[in-house]
Amino acid sequence: MHKKVYSKNLSLVPRLVKLAHKFNRFYLEGQGKNECKPFIVEGHQVGLVRMDFVDLLKKYPEVFEIKSNSVVLNPAFRDYNERTKKVESVLMECRQNNSFIALNGWRDEYYEIRPVFSSEPLLKMDRSATCLFGICKYGVDINGYVRHPDRGICIWLQKRSTTKPTWPGKWDNMVGGGLSEGFGVLETAYKEAEEEASIPSHLLKNLSSGGCVSFFYESEQGLFPNTEFVYDLELPLDFVPKNNDGEVDTFQLLSTQELLELLFSTDFKTTSCPVVVDFLIRHGVVTPENEPEYPRLVELLHVPLQSIYRHNVKSNGAL
Amino acid sequence: MHKKVYSKNLSLVPRLVKLAHKFNRFYLEGQGKNECKPFIVEGHQVGLVRMDFVDLLKKYPEVFEIKSNSVVLNPAFRDYNERTKKVESVLMECRQNNSFIALNGWRDEYYEIRPVFSSEPLLKMDRSATCLFGICKYGVDINGYVRHPDRGICIWLQKRSTTKPTWPGKWDNMVGGGLSEGFGVLETAYKEAEEEASIPSHLLKNLSSGGCVSFFYESEQGLFPNTEFVYDLELPLDFVPKNNDGEVDTFQLLSTQELLELLFSTDFKTTSCPVVVDFLIRHGVVTPENEPEYPRLVELLHVPLQSIYRHNVKSNGAL
Repeated sequence: MHKKVYSKNLSLVPRLVKLAHKFNRFYLEGQGKNECKPFIVEGHQVGLVRMDFVDLLKKYPEVFEIKSNSVVLNPAFRDYNERTKKVESVLMECRQNNSFIALNGWRDEYYEIRPVFSSEPLLKMDRSATCLFGICKYGVDINGYVRHPDRGICIWLQKRSTTKPTWPGKWDNMVGGGLSEGFGVLETAYKEAEEEASIPSHLLKNLSSGGCVSFFYESEQGLFPNTEFVYDLELPLDFVPKNNDGEVDTFQLLSTQELLELLFSTDFKTTSCPVVVDFLIRHGVVTPENEPEYPRLVELLHVPLQSIYRHNVKSNGAL
Repeated sequence: MHKKVYSKNLSLVPRLVKLAHKFNRFYLEGQGKNECKPFIVEGHQVGLVRMDFVDLLKKYPEVFEIKSNSVVLNPAFRDYNERTKKVESVLMECRQNNSFIALNGWRDEYYEIRPVFSSEPLLKMDRSATCLFGICKYGVDINGYVRHPDRGICIWLQKRSTTKPTWPGKWDNMVGGGLSEGFGVLETAYKEAEEEASIPSHLLKNLSSGGCVSFFYESEQGLFPNTEFVYDLELPLDFVPKNNDGEVDTFQLLSTQELLELLFSTDFKTTSCPVVVDFLIRHGVVTPENEPEYPRLVELLHVPLQSIYRHNVKSNGAL
């Protein structure tokens, strides 16, 4: 049923690749411009810094060394704590001077920075600052859905609270959150499911890991290389999510057709689109039959962030 | 149940990324070597040619122009038919001279060559020759599986006939086949399901599109940039596939643990591994909890072939 609805509305199909261009703005347009410098900590590239922020970091030579082809965190800092403290002192000053709008979203919530996903963290910084350093960020998303007898697969969405520092009032996946300090992937999924949508633990038993999506977005605020771990959760027809932490305005159940229309509006959080498109692909709603650029679309849901961030670093860590 | 089995046998986990390195040998090791020239037809890069084959093509200057940074099919050829005929005449001569082992697998089965997946074909050539030109190939795979009450998810595999020209006697996905001239993606899936495994049409109704995998393999024979459209088919417990076209030796139902062990043996067709690993990821068997390099693994199941093959071509088609 839902597959037919999508096929009927063929006008939406070629636009899915257009949407993938939007959330991969940096991957497709920004990379070649050579206007960013890799951010190196302890010989590992952990980020990518735009020139406007590089110019500001020049004022702190005791913390950041600006080389011709990189920004290097002072290797004299001994450990995780010292690196964290030194970077934070710079960011606090920037914040007071109101230099970068990204820092207006300061939330006293740390993000741990690692050379690759599975390794030990090198430092932590406030989540609002990570886009200034182009830090590769990891998050978790849960696609809550029901198999409706008449409407086919339907998906629960949340409307973000208007008081959120990022994407206020936009539509978003039912449950989503960044990996925070000290929390594992599945652990974060459980935590966010409870806080954001009050999913009881007997339903969370059906949570099923389904892959991850990677994309590289750019906005006025900064760079967003992002990998989201994706979970599916089939819910009973009569379950209604309820918010628990004040970060969600409302929840709504949408048919795939309604969901597609919303995706293309300006009311949906751009960086949450990849998770939805991946869901529609994995559940056979978007197929090679109704999406002529299917291989390109799947590719743009899995851009090679792990390779891009290793690319400039030689095996000895030198650029 | 099956998830636990996998978690228990943690020794297999870090090797999944190693396996992904094996089927991406060219993507990870070959690309930087600069030992290949893009193959250009009508201004579009459709392939990548290794230097040993470039040397041979030099003998046919009326068909192939060897430039410093590309191999260009003579643009004077008027249309699809002329291009096909001219390339075929060269390949027939190579075949008679026994120049390249890949051509020993000549099978009088054409493969249509397009600039991108959804566009019109520019020429066709025998499937055996496509690896010499590094043509990006598309295929279809069906993961046949059952939900066993005791053994968890179990997967049907086929053992390829020992008379097959490629990978004889190796274990492979239940159903798989290249997109052939004139057949669509879903159409190929139906055709192969019937020919290879005698799946009746009432069961094929449950066929569900689940995405595609892309990888870039290299062997002695040539280059294999490959995108496989992936379908899942849940089967009844009592169904047993039967071969219909003599290309399959036998079928066997394996638990996920047995499947993982087979994947790492030399008995499994290397270029069919990505489809299996993708299945295990989409069905929550391989997860971020048991696979520390999960984002890297998912990335290596979706390498950016569509971008690699556009990379060297300017918008006007010139290199």
